[in-house]
Amino acid sequence: MTMTATQTCEAAAAAATAVAALSTRQKDLVLLDMAAAIEQHRDAILEANRQDVAEARRSGVSATLVDRLTLTDRRMAGLAATIRTVVALPDPVGQVTGGWTRPNGLLIERVREPLGVVAVIYEARPNVTAEVAALCLKSGNCAVLRGSSIAAATNRAIMTALDTAIARHPAVPAAAVQLVEDPSRASATELMRAKGLVDLLVPRGGPALIESVERDATVPTVIDGAGNCHLYIDASADRDMATAVTINAKTSRPSVCNAIETLLVHRELVTDWLPGVLDELTAAGVEIRGSAEVCDAWPKALAATEEDWDTEYLDLVLAVRVVDDVDAAIGHIRRHGTANAEGIVARDIDVARRFARLVDSGSVFVNASPRYSDGGEFGYGVEIGVSTQKLHVRGPMGLEALTTVKNVVWGSGQTRTVA
Amino acid sequence: MTMTATQTCEAAAAAATAVAALSTRQKDLVLLDMAAAIEQHRDAILEANRQDVAEARRSGVSATLVDRLTLTDRRMAGLAATIRTVVALPDPVGQVTGGWTRPNGLLIERVREPLGVVAVIYEARPNVTAEVAALCLKSGNCAVLRGSSIAAATNRAIMTALDTAIARHPAVPAAAVQLVEDPSRASATELMRAKGLVDLLVPRGGPALIESVERDATVPTVIDGAGNCHLYIDASADRDMATAVTINAKTSRPSVCNAIETLLVHRELVTDWLPGVLDELTAAGVEIRGSAEVCDAWPKALAATEEDWDTEYLDLVLAVRVVDDVDAAIGHIRRHGTANAEGIVARDIDVARRFARLVDSGSVFVNASPRYSDGGEFGYGVEIGVSTQKLHVRGPMGLEALTTVKNVVWGSGQTRTVA
Repeated sequence: MTMTATQTCEAAAAAATAVAALSTRQKDLVLLDMAAAIEQHRDAILEANRQDVAEARRSGVSATLVDRLTLTDRRMAGLAATIRTVVALPDPVGQVTGGWTRPNGLLIERVREPLGVVAVIYEARPNVTAEVAALCLKSGNCAVLRGSSIAAATNRAIMTALDTAIARHPAVPAAAVQLVEDPSRASATELMRAKGLVDLLVPRGGPALIESVERDATVPTVIDGAGNCHLYIDASADRDMATAVTINAKTSRPSVCNAIETLLVHRELVTDWLPGVLDELTAAGVEIRGSAEVCDAWPKALAATEEDWDTEYLDLVLAVRVVDDVDAAIGHIRRHGTANAEGIVARDIDVARRFARLVDSGSVFVNASPRYSDGGEFGYGVEIGVSTQKLHVRGPMGLEALTTVKNVVWGSGQTRTVA
Repeated sequence: MTMTATQTCEAAAAAATAVAALSTRQKDLVLLDMAAAIEQHRDAILEANRQDVAEARRSGVSATLVDRLTLTDRRMAGLAATIRTVVALPDPVGQVTGGWTRPNGLLIERVREPLGVVAVIYEARPNVTAEVAALCLKSGNCAVLRGSSIAAATNRAIMTALDTAIARHPAVPAAAVQLVEDPSRASATELMRAKGLVDLLVPRGGPALIESVERDATVPTVIDGAGNCHLYIDASADRDMATAVTINAKTSRPSVCNAIETLLVHRELVTDWLPGVLDELTAAGVEIRGSAEVCDAWPKALAATEEDWDTEYLDLVLAVRVVDDVDAAIGHIRRHGTANAEGIVARDIDVARRFARLVDSGSVFVNASPRYSDGGEFGYGVEIGVSTQKLHVRGPMGLEALTTVKNVVWGSGQTRTVA
């Protein structure tokens, strides 16, 4: 009999205390066994993946999706390697993030603890199954994994390997890591509404999934949302650095959320720097949509409309606008941005610091490409996503994002007098 | 013409950058002026309050509510004093909570910034108007205050005083602090749905308000929820300390969320300690509802039902249960608690540390009364509430809870190579 998503969450919630109580060593040992088990189950996992891929091809899904689904040799090796990366990361549980003593002698400590049950809804890529399982377990949480139906056989085969490893560790409950057996849309909705059972839901997917979570979720969520990212080139910028960062930020991987979509250029650079960089971008295949002043200075540009400032192209298209100063750039970004990642190139320290202060996004890059907005590049090892919200965590999310900070107060019999 | 709640939020959002940019000195100067203006407007505020109180009495609201609404001399003085307390607190904006340098030379800093627009829905007490205005402004946020209709005239009079002060500071936008002009239920719902305009909504009120926010809010919220708090007395406890903490935790102010509702007692204490403390509690007017073993040991106890373990009495009633050990106490609290504040009295260090680790609540008190779960007692000066959720902030909330932590990355022209 198939377990419903809600039943899976109930089993996770019942196991949460035991998983939270595991020591770092206990967690690392089971994770190492999980990595080994994936290698031992290699043939079964690849066979299941061939079934999923064949079925996906038959049902006519896009080539991009088939590519994401397919376990190449490198990706297969990556499953176990990811888990071993997580073993090497420091355990966030028990970290004391601050503390102080009150005049009455009470010692207040802020201590990181597991959230409890973390559910993740994700799409085709089977490596997410191993990544999320490892991140949740290392941070002392029970993982509820809701992969997509297109990867169902692959995910089941990976889960079988993980279960084999978990079964060898009596202190680790079987429900520490679970795959939702039914990968339907209904099971995703069940997770969104499993209030009191799920402590954090992370949706990893396209706009339709995010919209559905924003509409339907009653459980706490962290949204990994859109990336309409900006780069501002100040009058004080080193011209060569400005060119290199612009080209990198737009062309190194245009399909990801930390690629820039709009370039904001200080008025002083319109004649002496802008045409050159637009030539280089065009040579790299980028279509330029400019404001009126951009089109005047560089007539090959298409005319940008208001809509362009709000569009996440995720493609070789770049909107370009001339601004009067750093405040105009900050204003444009606050109006049109999605609070993901933004950058500035500037030598003027006051300009750079003002941009860093007043741009209200998850990450702000001064003299560096916003493409570095990434858990791996931040040193988090493996990322669970990139938060575009302000509460709990902003920007790339690693193990810490899967914890909560509790107050532990140590006394010697203090009682409170009523004022 | 009356502004709608949504229009108020729009004005706040438009002012957010300017308020975020204020220096600590600018904020402290306007706050000091706000305190002075409240004192200058004392007569008008008291006259407005008399109107509200008279109207409340006419409409037959409860004596408790009339009491909360009434500005006594002490409360009137408290309005300005609260603002001055906030002036004396350190500014959380710009605090660097952590940072590190990556092998490629990028310096990553985590920096506290204002959230933007903070809306608070609250009930009769007019002092909340001054408290929340001060906390939001000090933390660089625009405040949208939605007080209750019962206090409408008082709140308007306080707001007029605050406006007078703000008008004297050209750098501070008029929309930095606003009172929602229409204190209807509809305006509360508007605030809950002002997505993209409100960065944080804090509902301060009873279960009906909390339920409505949990159901209707599309904006980010921090819930100041129920307090079904527990105290566990371990076999290793100092008997006198156990008695003092128990009496304090139940009787010092039973109507507040950090008063305990259930006492969990180790089996070894049932005959030699429990009867004495139950006698003392009874003498203090507390009704005891005990598990079977409690009733056996102390026959005056009423028999507790399953429902008692889940009830927040907020009154002189205490549920009492015998447990086998600290793990049974932790299990009871995880099953029945509301993740607010819990306490333990124990001399055994392993027992105390296990309780502190595995009780999953906002605050855990070891050998101290859970009644200390309070922003003032934590040293936060003034509190915006007590969070019962796990994301963003747990337990008492001060200025820090009104900030978000952004990543600021400092480079020297780094561009990312694609793997």
